[in-house]
Amino acid sequence: MHIILLSGGSGKRLWPLSNDIRSKQFIKIFRTKDGSYESMVQRVYHQIREVDKEATVTIATSKTQASSIHNQLGDEVLVCVEPCRRDTFPAVVLATAYLHDVRGISGEEPVIVCPVDPYVEIDYFEALKKLADIARGDEQDKALKGGANLVLMGMEPTYPSEKYGYILPTDKETVSGVKTFREKPDAKTAREYIRQGALWNGGVFAYQMKYVLEKAREIIGYADYETLYEKYDTLEKISFDYAVVEKEKNIKVMRFKGQWKDLGTWNTLSEAMEEPCVGDAILNETCENVHVLNELDVPVLCMGLKNMVVSASPEGILVSDKEQSSYIKPFVDKIDQQVMFAEKSWGDFLVLDVTRESRTSKVTLKPGHGMNYHSHARRDEVWNIISGKGRCVIDGKSRPVKAGDVLEMKAGCRHTIMADTELKIIEIQLGPEISVHDKQKFELETKEE
Amino acid sequence: MHIILLSGGSGKRLWPLSNDIRSKQFIKIFRTKDGSYESMVQRVYHQIREVDKEATVTIATSKTQASSIHNQLGDEVLVCVEPCRRDTFPAVVLATAYLHDVRGISGEEPVIVCPVDPYVEIDYFEALKKLADIARGDEQDKALKGGANLVLMGMEPTYPSEKYGYILPTDKETVSGVKTFREKPDAKTAREYIRQGALWNGGVFAYQMKYVLEKAREIIGYADYETLYEKYDTLEKISFDYAVVEKEKNIKVMRFKGQWKDLGTWNTLSEAMEEPCVGDAILNETCENVHVLNELDVPVLCMGLKNMVVSASPEGILVSDKEQSSYIKPFVDKIDQQVMFAEKSWGDFLVLDVTRESRTSKVTLKPGHGMNYHSHARRDEVWNIISGKGRCVIDGKSRPVKAGDVLEMKAGCRHTIMADTELKIIEIQLGPEISVHDKQKFELETKEE
Repeated sequence: MHIILLSGGSGKRLWPLSNDIRSKQFIKIFRTKDGSYESMVQRVYHQIREVDKEATVTIATSKTQASSIHNQLGDEVLVCVEPCRRDTFPAVVLATAYLHDVRGISGEEPVIVCPVDPYVEIDYFEALKKLADIARGDEQDKALKGGANLVLMGMEPTYPSEKYGYILPTDKETVSGVKTFREKPDAKTAREYIRQGALWNGGVFAYQMKYVLEKAREIIGYADYETLYEKYDTLEKISFDYAVVEKEKNIKVMRFKGQWKDLGTWNTLSEAMEEPCVGDAILNETCENVHVLNELDVPVLCMGLKNMVVSASPEGILVSDKEQSSYIKPFVDKIDQQVMFAEKSWGDFLVLDVTRESRTSKVTLKPGHGMNYHSHARRDEVWNIISGKGRCVIDGKSRPVKAGDVLEMKAGCRHTIMADTELKIIEIQLGPEISVHDKQKFELETKEE
Repeated sequence: MHIILLSGGSGKRLWPLSNDIRSKQFIKIFRTKDGSYESMVQRVYHQIREVDKEATVTIATSKTQASSIHNQLGDEVLVCVEPCRRDTFPAVVLATAYLHDVRGISGEEPVIVCPVDPYVEIDYFEALKKLADIARGDEQDKALKGGANLVLMGMEPTYPSEKYGYILPTDKETVSGVKTFREKPDAKTAREYIRQGALWNGGVFAYQMKYVLEKAREIIGYADYETLYEKYDTLEKISFDYAVVEKEKNIKVMRFKGQWKDLGTWNTLSEAMEEPCVGDAILNETCENVHVLNELDVPVLCMGLKNMVVSASPEGILVSDKEQSSYIKPFVDKIDQQVMFAEKSWGDFLVLDVTRESRTSKVTLKPGHGMNYHSHARRDEVWNIISGKGRCVIDGKSRPVKAGDVLEMKAGCRHTIMADTELKIIEIQLGPEISVHDKQKFELETKEE
């Protein structure tokens, strides 16, 4: 099974846990068997592995998310990074070309595309396998009147939602043809569609790779992965639904009746939580239907709350009535909070303190990982190593470092650090204009001291 | 006017803004004319100055609060530090002896004693002046049938509270004799007392100093301030009410009808707030009767809340229904959070990060102030100066310091730092057992480098 997971979104709706660079799929809220917590992307990845150990999982995403993905899933996961955002058709084509041209997978092979963030159970992934089998046109599916160029998954709707597209099948079989599509209708129209047997379009579909690559040749002049990547920023923004799905005649839809939830608001997210609190929290006995997600090191005490969600992170604190939490976006848009926590491929950083001319952060490097070799033009830095062992390179000189060491780098000085064991650093930045953009990267050249 | 302000209490009821070392009177919540915020102790101090520029204000308090008092009121305020806590009779005697023996104020002079934390307006302090005049037995008070050894202020009760003592006056005049006292009665008894014209005992009283010093001679063998201070820890814990008030025959009570509130719970405190938010907070339009006190640098967003208080500090976060907030104490008692923020006489510190073997804090020194000269046996320290100018002494060697300097002190090394301008330092402590008790103080001996 080859799966392409589309990982996008900037997700202000789950502020303060999500923000401009941290999407909802990276929030760790699901309790695992070993008692720790995993994110939606980790949960989906582990579920796929449970159904098919050999599955090829490719995550199609932006540059900003690639670090978080490697941080959460390790280095072995395939990540297809879009050079810039160009909607789902270019993204699906790029990921398909990556599998075909870079990973060498046959064009006859079916691929399943699905969003990275639905809250589903194992039956969903069993259904995805089935979807791929239909796209391949396997023997077992001859009963389904032959294959199809494109096979969609249609979710049995539970209410007349205005936020999904609807697919009207030709009959009531498990797999059927498609009579018509309807983009996000109003509630009244949605109700009428559901009456006629329409299904939600969840953006889940399967195809043989050669089919999409052929479409790409026609529509955007696809030749191979390399050249597509090069000209990616010149491509038109266009959705896969619009470019392909709605124009395809040989198309089938497979019904899915299992759990399929979008945890896009605090209300829906908290419903999926197995326990009322994640993190350090106390609810007194008069609290009812309260969920707390606390990422801070200090406790949250809740007394006499009803139907509420409380969430605290280094970015801020949300206290909201659950229903009201759906209307969060315009308020978060107004908040001009700098990013206080970020996952990087090498670990993460947490901003501890900001003054006019300084910024203090806690930097954690994973064993075996290191930063880029870089310099800053307008700030000095001090690294106070507080735990672990590793090696730093400063202006070409390499030396071992350990807890207690203090390293001073003046503006212009090239530096990096690599972790042997997990390395924790208190980094002090000092300068008149501290900016993430003030960073120049270099090839690492070292001589032993 | 000579006033002794009793400043006590550890105040878990206003967690997370109050804690073991930070009492409610130091929380800055009252908007001043210049737009900044002041605490209860600052508000009371400024109100006294407004009524009487020449007033002698002495704050009787514990060692732990003395730093906060100097930090908030400056160095000129008189602070009478109790060597240990011994209830109000020893505290009042010690402060009176301090005024008489150390400050040289005549025994004929009246003194007013009152708690530091009532929420009152200017009329209260006008009434205190009157109370002192009666205690002095001035000409103008001959109409009051002569002076009295002790003059109490009786607050007109607004409801049958169970938390105050009651004073039953002999008549309904502004100043009258006292028929009887009643310690905190139940609501039913309180109602009956109020019906009979009883007043609340707010712990506010005035006397000529020689009267209390004479009582102290009789009861605890007072001789002078010095010897009293020396034997303070051997004194019995006894309240002023019990030791003196309830036994005194020549006693008067003066009615006070103005505002007099105890802001001891989140409910009463928020009622006294002039605006719904102190600190960075956003309330959406569906919030009703919500108060937010946010001491963190990140925003609090509230949506759809009714009758609630939200408070965030470096110690934790409280989200509570206002009525429920009165029951906070047992929950806070269970929280084992180390002190994250503290005011010191030289400035303040804020803990930014704690790991198993490290602690990172932001230390701010006020201009002209410095720490004690000290060392730690079991931890190394690094000072990263992030702003300001000053001078440090490390193992006897003095040198100027400025933003960007990094100072490393190994365990055992003696060190201090003094601020010329406001000095901000990121302090990293590293060691196996980081404890506030691991500190040895020394006399400062320096040689210029």
